[in-house]
Amino acid sequence: MDRVYMDHVSATPVKKPVLDAMLPYFQEEFANPATVYDLGSKTKQVIEEQREKVAALIGAKGKQIIFTASGAEANNLAVKGIAFAKQSKGNHIIISAVEHHSVLNSARFFERMDFEVTFLPVNKYGLVDPEQLRAAIRPETILVSIMHANNEIGTIQPISELSSICHEKGVVFHTDAVATVGNIPVDVNALGVDLLSLSGISIGAPKGTGALYFREKMRVMPLIHGGIQESGRRAGTENVPAIVGLGKASELAVKGLAQKSNYVKGLRDLLVSGIKERISHVTFTGHPENRLPGHASFCIKAIEGEALIFMLSQDGIYVNTGSACASKALKTSPVLVAIGTLAELAQGSCVFTLDTSNTKEEVNYVLEKLPPIVDRLRAMSPIWKEKDAA
Amino acid sequence: MDRVYMDHVSATPVKKPVLDAMLPYFQEEFANPATVYDLGSKTKQVIEEQREKVAALIGAKGKQIIFTASGAEANNLAVKGIAFAKQSKGNHIIISAVEHHSVLNSARFFERMDFEVTFLPVNKYGLVDPEQLRAAIRPETILVSIMHANNEIGTIQPISELSSICHEKGVVFHTDAVATVGNIPVDVNALGVDLLSLSGISIGAPKGTGALYFREKMRVMPLIHGGIQESGRRAGTENVPAIVGLGKASELAVKGLAQKSNYVKGLRDLLVSGIKERISHVTFTGHPENRLPGHASFCIKAIEGEALIFMLSQDGIYVNTGSACASKALKTSPVLVAIGTLAELAQGSCVFTLDTSNTKEEVNYVLEKLPPIVDRLRAMSPIWKEKDAA
Repeated sequence: MDRVYMDHVSATPVKKPVLDAMLPYFQEEFANPATVYDLGSKTKQVIEEQREKVAALIGAKGKQIIFTASGAEANNLAVKGIAFAKQSKGNHIIISAVEHHSVLNSARFFERMDFEVTFLPVNKYGLVDPEQLRAAIRPETILVSIMHANNEIGTIQPISELSSICHEKGVVFHTDAVATVGNIPVDVNALGVDLLSLSGISIGAPKGTGALYFREKMRVMPLIHGGIQESGRRAGTENVPAIVGLGKASELAVKGLAQKSNYVKGLRDLLVSGIKERISHVTFTGHPENRLPGHASFCIKAIEGEALIFMLSQDGIYVNTGSACASKALKTSPVLVAIGTLAELAQGSCVFTLDTSNTKEEVNYVLEKLPPIVDRLRAMSPIWKEKDAA
Repeated sequence: MDRVYMDHVSATPVKKPVLDAMLPYFQEEFANPATVYDLGSKTKQVIEEQREKVAALIGAKGKQIIFTASGAEANNLAVKGIAFAKQSKGNHIIISAVEHHSVLNSARFFERMDFEVTFLPVNKYGLVDPEQLRAAIRPETILVSIMHANNEIGTIQPISELSSICHEKGVVFHTDAVATVGNIPVDVNALGVDLLSLSGISIGAPKGTGALYFREKMRVMPLIHGGIQESGRRAGTENVPAIVGLGKASELAVKGLAQKSNYVKGLRDLLVSGIKERISHVTFTGHPENRLPGHASFCIKAIEGEALIFMLSQDGIYVNTGSACASKALKTSPVLVAIGTLAELAQGSCVFTLDTSNTKEEVNYVLEKLPPIVDRLRAMSPIWKEKDAA
């Protein structure tokens, strides 16, 4: 095995047809879409075509899509864009305790400005309780943001149920769908969301791509002020090649999505059952069924996640421990804390995210390499020795 | 002549060595720099190398560079990042009347939040008067933002003089150097600026690239909140290929900059003198000497700029009318209004921005094609007939 990459939640290689689609826009078709001459009108037209493709991936219309430079930017635009636009209506935001840092810290930013933020707890599977959401909504609540699926534990939230509670009460509902778009069918109308963030990173588009879906006629304060790009909602010269990449990747992602989901789910289940058979004292995290198809997450007792990731990488196996952005910053994952994982156990967090590029042979290779590494790490662990002796 | 492109202020094609440098990072070296394994450490290292290259272009240190996805984002980060960080210290911002929309509208955004914004007037050349700046500073002034050179009229401001006035009074000084970096030598220490924005678009880097220089230890509130990327100052997975493109373009831009400036200045002067000889009733805008080397801007009486641009493009000549982002939005350029151009004359605005890819033959081709087009447009103009008859 040359390289077994199972960290698709952190990054994916750009797909060949995606890169091919992008290439003409770096050197040949390089005109600024804001210019009035034919070269500019042409790139402007290309952007609008991509907008339709991205919209089609989530059941939206092109004019409901704002291109951004990342999922994080889309999340910031959603939370801040609504909070600033509606601050005369109220100063209360509700988010879940397991949101991505880009939602969490965007909401926290408003605490400086006389906003109050409610962090909805989650159960042991990472699920928000709809009745707790209903109870948390106040007359001054202007925004609820709950992620579609969690990147660390894979749990998929009951978004349509949560959004309908918000709509009963006239509250705007945003979902961070970075982890789901391209992995499971996502339809903004079925979900009933007012805003939805997505990223190109998880679908084989280049880094530096993302988008925010917004319900028509909704006022969203720009995050990046300036010119009239993106209907005045996001300034800066449009990144034409990146947008073409996101469009092409969206077109590819939508094709045979159900079959692709089934395929990666099969591989993931093989991995999970193999780990259960071969390694003791493993606690699987997130919901056992309502979870991302290619997502396996668990904590291995008495090992340190970073050491495990490092040793696996020496065998060419690439996986993650916790959230990609948080992994270097934090010792204990706030998501694992929120689902009640003991700090000691949370240290041994492991996240495998598979996609259609992975194979059964790769899973078997992981199942061959992982158990002896766990044994070696446990042999060095004073905690394990105590437990083992007990 | 196949295509004579003289709109480099709007967009530049990505240089071949820049694209070549970027390519490995789309598919091969695609790992998320935040990951703890070797593939991620490698892309993280690559980013830090580019940071040094971008810093070298402006006489800064790598750790003073925050990568962004555009010049507009860098301007937003500068203005909002300082205003939010310093709002307890004061609520007054000073900008010039000719700032780019990304600075202008970022400042305007704070007017909603009990800030006051002073717009410094400019003289007929577009220059800010240092003594007017000094008089405008109040105890509650927290930020002054004045652009290095104006994209529409080419005028270069006396930044070091302006920044030293601000420093005497303890006020943070930002300059939008999108139009200068890569075109003339730019040194943050010589300019004495606390923050400086640049874009990759003007230096043959791909769209979706930009950076903000900031003086060390300066507090800048993030524009995009989330993970710990860019030392916690700009969240979102780093756009590795784009950053590599900006790094490579910076490396190329710094080489032989004085000679390149001289070359384009020579072409520009040839163009300007040729127009003066061949077309009557042309008013050149901006400062005659203190201006960008490849920048020629003027208003042609009794013609409509968009019609001129359209007709020139039919002869394969690509130029602009006013600012790229504003050109579709506004009938009269605020910059031309600020320098006292009559609305009627401002309609005939024309901006030629040359770079080293342009040749003397191209300039001669423009000088051959432009006068008859002006004649044809004037022949259709009722205004011109009156004037002509007078």
